[in-house]
Amino acid sequence: MTASPTNSVLPALEGAIGASKVSAAREVLEEYSHDLGPIEAAAVPLAVVFAESVEDVQATVRACAAAGTRIVPRGAGSGLSGAAHAIENSIILSFERMNRILEIRPDDEVAVVEPGVINADLNAAAAEHGLMYAPDPASHGFSTIGGNIGTNAGGLRCAKYGVTRDSVLGLDVVLADGTLVRVGRGTFKGVAGYDLTGLLVGSEGTLGIVVAATVRLRYLPVAVRTIAAFYADFASAAAGVLAVGRARVQPAIMELMDAGSLADADRLNGSDLLSRGRALLLIQTDGFGAEPEAEVVRRVLAETGAALLDDDPEEAERLVFLRRNSRGIGQDSQFRVGEDVAVPRSRLVDYVHELERMAAEHRVDVKVVAHAGDGNLHPEFSVDPGSPDLAEAVTRLNEALDESIDVALAMGGTITGEHGVGSFKLRWLPLEQSERLRDLQHRIKDVFDPHGILNPGKAV
Amino acid sequence: MTASPTNSVLPALEGAIGASKVSAAREVLEEYSHDLGPIEAAAVPLAVVFAESVEDVQATVRACAAAGTRIVPRGAGSGLSGAAHAIENSIILSFERMNRILEIRPDDEVAVVEPGVINADLNAAAAEHGLMYAPDPASHGFSTIGGNIGTNAGGLRCAKYGVTRDSVLGLDVVLADGTLVRVGRGTFKGVAGYDLTGLLVGSEGTLGIVVAATVRLRYLPVAVRTIAAFYADFASAAAGVLAVGRARVQPAIMELMDAGSLADADRLNGSDLLSRGRALLLIQTDGFGAEPEAEVVRRVLAETGAALLDDDPEEAERLVFLRRNSRGIGQDSQFRVGEDVAVPRSRLVDYVHELERMAAEHRVDVKVVAHAGDGNLHPEFSVDPGSPDLAEAVTRLNEALDESIDVALAMGGTITGEHGVGSFKLRWLPLEQSERLRDLQHRIKDVFDPHGILNPGKAV
Repeated sequence: MTASPTNSVLPALEGAIGASKVSAAREVLEEYSHDLGPIEAAAVPLAVVFAESVEDVQATVRACAAAGTRIVPRGAGSGLSGAAHAIENSIILSFERMNRILEIRPDDEVAVVEPGVINADLNAAAAEHGLMYAPDPASHGFSTIGGNIGTNAGGLRCAKYGVTRDSVLGLDVVLADGTLVRVGRGTFKGVAGYDLTGLLVGSEGTLGIVVAATVRLRYLPVAVRTIAAFYADFASAAAGVLAVGRARVQPAIMELMDAGSLADADRLNGSDLLSRGRALLLIQTDGFGAEPEAEVVRRVLAETGAALLDDDPEEAERLVFLRRNSRGIGQDSQFRVGEDVAVPRSRLVDYVHELERMAAEHRVDVKVVAHAGDGNLHPEFSVDPGSPDLAEAVTRLNEALDESIDVALAMGGTITGEHGVGSFKLRWLPLEQSERLRDLQHRIKDVFDPHGILNPGKAV
Repeated sequence: MTASPTNSVLPALEGAIGASKVSAAREVLEEYSHDLGPIEAAAVPLAVVFAESVEDVQATVRACAAAGTRIVPRGAGSGLSGAAHAIENSIILSFERMNRILEIRPDDEVAVVEPGVINADLNAAAAEHGLMYAPDPASHGFSTIGGNIGTNAGGLRCAKYGVTRDSVLGLDVVLADGTLVRVGRGTFKGVAGYDLTGLLVGSEGTLGIVVAATVRLRYLPVAVRTIAAFYADFASAAAGVLAVGRARVQPAIMELMDAGSLADADRLNGSDLLSRGRALLLIQTDGFGAEPEAEVVRRVLAETGAALLDDDPEEAERLVFLRRNSRGIGQDSQFRVGEDVAVPRSRLVDYVHELERMAAEHRVDVKVVAHAGDGNLHPEFSVDPGSPDLAEAVTRLNEALDESIDVALAMGGTITGEHGVGSFKLRWLPLEQSERLRDLQHRIKDVFDPHGILNPGKAV
């Protein structure tokens, strides 16, 4: 009996890197078959590879290239768009064992890490030197630097400190034929050739596989002030966001929660946020100017009608913690989808009004949290999984989703602010980008991955 | 007589966009034939096109594509690496007439500009709203946003605010066949598809021609403090840079001038800087924390042996002005070449020691200014143009140049921190980037420009 190319990859992988780094156990295949994004076309991988070294990754890529097997790289599997979902004829390449911080050079303000390092672990190590790794997605406690790079993750602090791309200086990358290359640089500045680092960041493993990253560290702020402002409605809170901007204060964090999100938090935590207001604006200032900035913020928020939680910094901190963890780590499903549009900051209010309108029209529930400093909104649409006509409810949910995208684009926004296209948002990409633009990206993909084995069908 | 393709482009251009926008006058061709980078292979363009609209650019590209004529885009011609040098069978496409600020949206903190807008003009317009466009190359008084984008220009403020790439959100781009596409976004965050905006920024017009840019604006700081610190030697001043970092203060500007640069400034301005010290460290803090940050900076610099110009803020400001303009706008030549390496911050002192050693060994003059916050150095090498054996002097200069590159790379640095590869630094690119990496870039170039008409022989 001749083994099909598909079946032969497992022994080939075991031969190449050792059986202890490869699993085809059913429960492992199932566990690693998807990230937290909605699953539309479930697939089971042929194997899960637990690489322990750059050489393991190279050998894995070569074995897969020879067998025509596709490779889906995976950090913690905490992505929200399906970029790490298994596809037909694929293996999952997990980086959880490549989790060493290779170097921290405090005077250079640089760290070199393997892709499986947990974001929070890098921050803990950097903090010993008075430094931090700025990008802080809500998943920072469990997501990996490699996964953050694959999706160009944002987070709360990026209002002031930028997104993942802004902290990545250089990458070691295994190409589709197993060759190892180094792109970018080890210095803060550098313009030699095209910006391949930027091209790879956010490419969801479709162009190359990141096996090490040189990242810039920032100064751990000497002071932090947290301001919690409750408003009677979302529109007033959004006006507060613009007022802070007009006062020329750049907060490190500027988060908005609507009534639905506050109710959710109350249910989860036994708090009574909703009794204090129908919208919450959370602002952190940091650094040497934290206190004078906070004074200005308090003044302009009071002028926009906020009820300030003024004398209880611990409670304010606790609210930021609740906000950071408001999403939880639940799997999106056909009944509940978290969105990720971004609009120009001045359109925040208009956009939320539109969300409320379309929720009513399509009879779906919606609640919103927003990285308001960046105009990045996370509406969460849901329908009751116990609806009598479930198919009809899912249809209504999808109609609301599609409309929420159309409206964001009409306002000059984007379909994804920080979660990435993955597989789930591919249907909306043509609404944002012209055919020519998408064709250019596919041809760039062909340059890097001529045989289409690197996470095909994702990102572009 | 049949016109050669080369000769036919002039009437084709005049027919396509009108004779008033095309010149082939000898003095115009000469004036526009080069930027401020060293000229190694002088070429005269066939024509200079002064585009006034996107349609002019599209028509120009189509006419050149049909004639097989190459296109060299040009902002102000203030580049230092030859990216805007004319090449054989080329036209120069000048953007000086496309200099309108199309939009400033203060609440969105965004501006949309044509590529010919002067950097300082955009800053003046933004300042009316309490905003600024952060990237500030020394040429900001005359260089254009389009040119800044083409080279991914840095500047003084990028220690805190990042380089050009960090302020560009989206671009309108004319492709090699004349098609207009929009890449990127109008929002602060966005991760839809590959980062083509980042790929185009710094690509020196080799992938597409930027005809409009959406840029992020930052807050004009509410306060600025300037600290001028004279040191007995460069090593002590560089130690001051690291001390400020260890105190976790992020200055907006952190500039170093060595004794040669101070002597130069004295000669140009009639000042007496050199009598006050053999190295000058200039630091600006800004924002709400400017004063407490400046206090920390003054303390740690005093501890590293600095003589502070403490009680004369106007004089300190004047020194920053002198530093900004220390390079002048002179043309580099075979007798004088300004360099642009970057090294990890902790290697600043080592690198300058090496520079002094190689200057002595090769009997060339060297002086250095550095964007010390970024580890980006601008050594200027020169030999006496009146040397008896000129060819030998030029050889010595080039040997010193080559060695300065080797040493920077050996320290983990890059051949170009902010000026770009252009044509002049192509000879060093293989020292920094592997053949595979360069091949990938050439294949990306082929995707965008299959017939090689967009500024070929530059950047990669």
